[in-house]
Amino acid sequence: MAVATQSLEALCINSIRFLAIDAVEKAKSGHPGLPMGAAPMAFVLWDKFMRFNPKNPNWFNRDRFVLSAGHGCMLQYALLYLTGYDSVGLDDIKQFRQWGSRTPGHPENFETPGVEVTTGPLGQGIANAVGLAMAEAHLAARFNQSDCTLVDHYTYVILGDGCNMEGVSGEACSLAGHLGLGKLIALYDDNHISIDGSTDISFTEDVAKRFEAYGWHVQHVEDGNTDLDAIAKAIENAKAVTDKPSLIKVTTTIGYGSPNKANTPGVHGAALGTDEIIATRENLGWSYGDFEVPEDALNHMRKAVERGASYEAEWEETLATYRTQYAEAAAEFERMLSGKLPEGWADGLPTFTPADKGTATRKHSQATLNALAPALPELIGGSADLTHSNLTEIKVSGDFQLGQYENRNLRFGVREHGMGAICNGIALHNSGLIPYCATFLVFADYMRAAIRLSALSEAGVIYVMTHDSVGLGEDGPTHQPVETVASLRAIPNLTVIRPADGNEVSGAYKIAVENRKAPTLIAFTRQNVPNLDGSSIENTAKGAYVLSGAEETPDIILIGTGSEVSLCVDAAEQLRADGKKVRVVSMPSWELFEAQDQAYKESVLPKSVTKRLVVEAASSFGWCRYMGSEGDMISIERFGASAPGDLVMEKFGYTVDNVIARAKAVLG
Amino acid sequence: MAVATQSLEALCINSIRFLAIDAVEKAKSGHPGLPMGAAPMAFVLWDKFMRFNPKNPNWFNRDRFVLSAGHGCMLQYALLYLTGYDSVGLDDIKQFRQWGSRTPGHPENFETPGVEVTTGPLGQGIANAVGLAMAEAHLAARFNQSDCTLVDHYTYVILGDGCNMEGVSGEACSLAGHLGLGKLIALYDDNHISIDGSTDISFTEDVAKRFEAYGWHVQHVEDGNTDLDAIAKAIENAKAVTDKPSLIKVTTTIGYGSPNKANTPGVHGAALGTDEIIATRENLGWSYGDFEVPEDALNHMRKAVERGASYEAEWEETLATYRTQYAEAAAEFERMLSGKLPEGWADGLPTFTPADKGTATRKHSQATLNALAPALPELIGGSADLTHSNLTEIKVSGDFQLGQYENRNLRFGVREHGMGAICNGIALHNSGLIPYCATFLVFADYMRAAIRLSALSEAGVIYVMTHDSVGLGEDGPTHQPVETVASLRAIPNLTVIRPADGNEVSGAYKIAVENRKAPTLIAFTRQNVPNLDGSSIENTAKGAYVLSGAEETPDIILIGTGSEVSLCVDAAEQLRADGKKVRVVSMPSWELFEAQDQAYKESVLPKSVTKRLVVEAASSFGWCRYMGSEGDMISIERFGASAPGDLVMEKFGYTVDNVIARAKAVLG
Repeated sequence: MAVATQSLEALCINSIRFLAIDAVEKAKSGHPGLPMGAAPMAFVLWDKFMRFNPKNPNWFNRDRFVLSAGHGCMLQYALLYLTGYDSVGLDDIKQFRQWGSRTPGHPENFETPGVEVTTGPLGQGIANAVGLAMAEAHLAARFNQSDCTLVDHYTYVILGDGCNMEGVSGEACSLAGHLGLGKLIALYDDNHISIDGSTDISFTEDVAKRFEAYGWHVQHVEDGNTDLDAIAKAIENAKAVTDKPSLIKVTTTIGYGSPNKANTPGVHGAALGTDEIIATRENLGWSYGDFEVPEDALNHMRKAVERGASYEAEWEETLATYRTQYAEAAAEFERMLSGKLPEGWADGLPTFTPADKGTATRKHSQATLNALAPALPELIGGSADLTHSNLTEIKVSGDFQLGQYENRNLRFGVREHGMGAICNGIALHNSGLIPYCATFLVFADYMRAAIRLSALSEAGVIYVMTHDSVGLGEDGPTHQPVETVASLRAIPNLTVIRPADGNEVSGAYKIAVENRKAPTLIAFTRQNVPNLDGSSIENTAKGAYVLSGAEETPDIILIGTGSEVSLCVDAAEQLRADGKKVRVVSMPSWELFEAQDQAYKESVLPKSVTKRLVVEAASSFGWCRYMGSEGDMISIERFGASAPGDLVMEKFGYTVDNVIARAKAVLG
Repeated sequence: MAVATQSLEALCINSIRFLAIDAVEKAKSGHPGLPMGAAPMAFVLWDKFMRFNPKNPNWFNRDRFVLSAGHGCMLQYALLYLTGYDSVGLDDIKQFRQWGSRTPGHPENFETPGVEVTTGPLGQGIANAVGLAMAEAHLAARFNQSDCTLVDHYTYVILGDGCNMEGVSGEACSLAGHLGLGKLIALYDDNHISIDGSTDISFTEDVAKRFEAYGWHVQHVEDGNTDLDAIAKAIENAKAVTDKPSLIKVTTTIGYGSPNKANTPGVHGAALGTDEIIATRENLGWSYGDFEVPEDALNHMRKAVERGASYEAEWEETLATYRTQYAEAAAEFERMLSGKLPEGWADGLPTFTPADKGTATRKHSQATLNALAPALPELIGGSADLTHSNLTEIKVSGDFQLGQYENRNLRFGVREHGMGAICNGIALHNSGLIPYCATFLVFADYMRAAIRLSALSEAGVIYVMTHDSVGLGEDGPTHQPVETVASLRAIPNLTVIRPADGNEVSGAYKIAVENRKAPTLIAFTRQNVPNLDGSSIENTAKGAYVLSGAEETPDIILIGTGSEVSLCVDAAEQLRADGKKVRVVSMPSWELFEAQDQAYKESVLPKSVTKRLVVEAASSFGWCRYMGSEGDMISIERFGASAPGDLVMEKFGYTVDNVIARAKAVLG
């Protein structure tokens, strides 16, 4: 049925529209078009279907909502305000896009309770939603009992044409279809307008058919502007399909209600302007003032508070029953929700002495992951189709597949970008799960936009990146990272660790697991490295530490990372034989070192020692920070080359002899 | 029909297989599985359809071949050898994956004549192929005459499951379908095996249906192992469909012929081993020695040399006719092929004085692009759906669309990664076209893998990146680059330029247009900046230069880039009023500055002046290189914030007063 202009539904829907219109107008910045067009589907979803508790945005069993088309965030802020969240009041809406407000230009989970993930970069949100749905499916499979359903929520998404054009959404949605995530329901705001104009100029594919090809259940609501029943029916149908994710294509008019700007790109990303707002008010029969919400509308929407309280109370009862009948599982479930790691989780971390045979750090990573897996049931992850190169398989578990969601080995396929965004979703489900994902280090470039969002949105994802230098050999320059480590060290709030041996690998994982509010990226070698004398889990946590030559002020400091540390150790021995005072510093992580106090930093790298040689099989970009005014670096300032790894390392100067020669040159 | 084991076809196909098997075995490294499975389709394509001249790999009108599944490069090397290219002899094949060989671990266009683009990172090749096909379509539309067809070739691709899982391929193929690129023909090696095992574990979508949804013509060859006629028929059908790109799904067996490893991941990326090679030889009735090619097979395949000579001769006749009948067009066509820029192409570059009203550098970019467009008909490009924000539209041309391929404005849609890879293809068509593409600077992260390949494969793409700092304002941290510029400066062979005003924008484009063997990335402001006294096109080319205070040795050097240079200029004035000797250096490009001789560099940044203040609205990562031992920087070491741009800049310390205060602190 169509909405009578003054019906209660119309009042609610237009309240959303005009809050968006007025906020964007006041800010003279923002995107009114999507909120105006998507308000009906959002109203139906939030008013008739979504289970959440405005007074406790963190209630575990809430339905998750993701606005993948994040630029339309005024839609979400309006909904948060109207349904009674404390995080967004009318004053916050009036502060839209202003310094320090809780209503920033795109939704930020770390700023605004009620926002689940950070969206805006297109395609990320729908991929995060796949991760949220995977987290729910996993926890449901692990904890639900035949007579007690503890974990049971939907993940709803509103996405637009832009999200559907981005490759990352295709990657994640293809995997979602494969996994048959029945509780993922995406509403596609099909308004045929993107920033450049009609989608006819660049986007004429059959999106519905593509999602069918992915294995999704697809429906079409032809009139998303006024046919609320059709929207409701479609969501009901979607919920009824339990073995496939659902896409509901909802055809709408961008900027609906604006007589002169509706269905034009002009309404996408700019304020309507005073005249057009007046015209829109007339057109929609809206007699209310700026930021004014009709009492009937507010009263109706605020019923969400009461509903939410009862939803949570009901669930608390379930949890109480669960506690009595499944005490152990309940304790584990609540431990995970609390974010507390299990007692002694780190006890099994392997340690090594120089007597232990050296191996590739990626193999240490495999051993460490499998040492942690039994102690850390929240550890879940996998590789982008490089499982046997990244060595990321957890042996105590099987594959996470349709019907086997309790398993913890995720098979992402060759979908690095989707993988990263999915792991952000798993982390931001905030149920204690610790997601890790893996590919070759050089392919961090494929997923960089997702890694950046891990760092920005405080998602504790662990990035397991193997084949971390030209030392990988034959695959050649397309597969050999050179500038990659530098480019990652540059990302704020991301801890990058390049461990040198077994102890440093254990140390790296200890940091990463404890680092629940930020991502950690660990770079592992393909080739073997020896176990060092002096490395330890504790030292690794300091980011840099003295392996040898701590006693006196050295003539020169050799600073190495990862596979190059052992070259420094061997070179130092021979240099000492020549009477040089040499200190060797292993520096697995800049970020961890910078977090130490000044005294410690000075004790490792005394300012007075300006003769330093950095040895890292990578670009020197950024290393001037530690190189010292009379220092030097054995670095790679070009792309790599295809040849056996040992030879490539030799050709690029990564030999003990060359370290000695370059160190002597520094010493002068 | 099936191939009789000893038929000529079988000899040729097995020659490809065993060259791959033997080369990988000798290297003890590589990927035999794909060449063994895809040999039949490759043989049919190269032997019966592809028009190329082995003795002139650069013959303009050749069909382009892209092995998107680049790990299977022994397939391509075998074909190059068998068809008589001088670039790959038997000795080169024996040097597979060895230092300095012309047969590296993945195909590299800059190493091996006959290889069109650099592949290996999955999904890139098919996207490059879309660019190659767009280049052909554009040149055909521009130069072909009703009675004289000068430009007329196909672009063929072999891609695998991995390519089809990557989002970048989806982006590019969706656009290819929209554009109806009828001369793009992709053979999908459907072998159901990826590195992790059967595609059943992660990739069960209906690929054929997805490509139909993109608007492609799709066929299926059910027996790609032996049914050569079906392969040939499918390619014929594909050529007959002129208004849609074609996907031919060719079902094959990976490692075909290996009794124990065929159809397993074990044959994907590892040598077969002596025993299995013996078994495979027996199984395929192959009585020849290592690297031995039956004479009949070589003789047959080498007919490509004669065919190729006649193809080219035929085309040379067409060109001769074209010269006589369309002299002007012919001259222009040949000028473009020669890579020579038009006389006086740069004469129209705008220049400015401080009297000229300041504006955003993105608007200077718009003016410069439109000043160049009429003079540079080879300039072609566009934006990822941000045309009116990036300001990249060429006003002298319309949109490149089906039936209007002569136009130069490309509408990429919200597909940054596909856009970059497509532009690599346009550049590597090597027909003189100069592709540019645009998005917000922060979204360089979405296309970083393509940017890296521009740099590696010597593709002269121009990246037009606007909204280049937190100064963009309200869109907030998801849209505000902080670490982005540093992460790009770290890429070898990429020139990054952040111009400060109109003259520097003109200078940046002059460099970018002349830079045909490497990409250039230019970062532009959203906000207004004044035109500086002392800036010029010539100075910009030096990467850094003195704006003021050149006369004497300064007490302090203020180094600025982009929108922050004017802050340094204003601060310097007041500092001088306080009697300080201040030099202001504008540093639009590190790479261009490093390319200058030592004397020049010393004249701009004398070593003796260690008190320096760098002012750039970005992370300090890497700046220690220029900061000086007593220097400092006004930088941003966190993510940005949503608020009006001027306020954000002020909050982060980008004001004249703060520059003065920080400079005084440095002066002590």
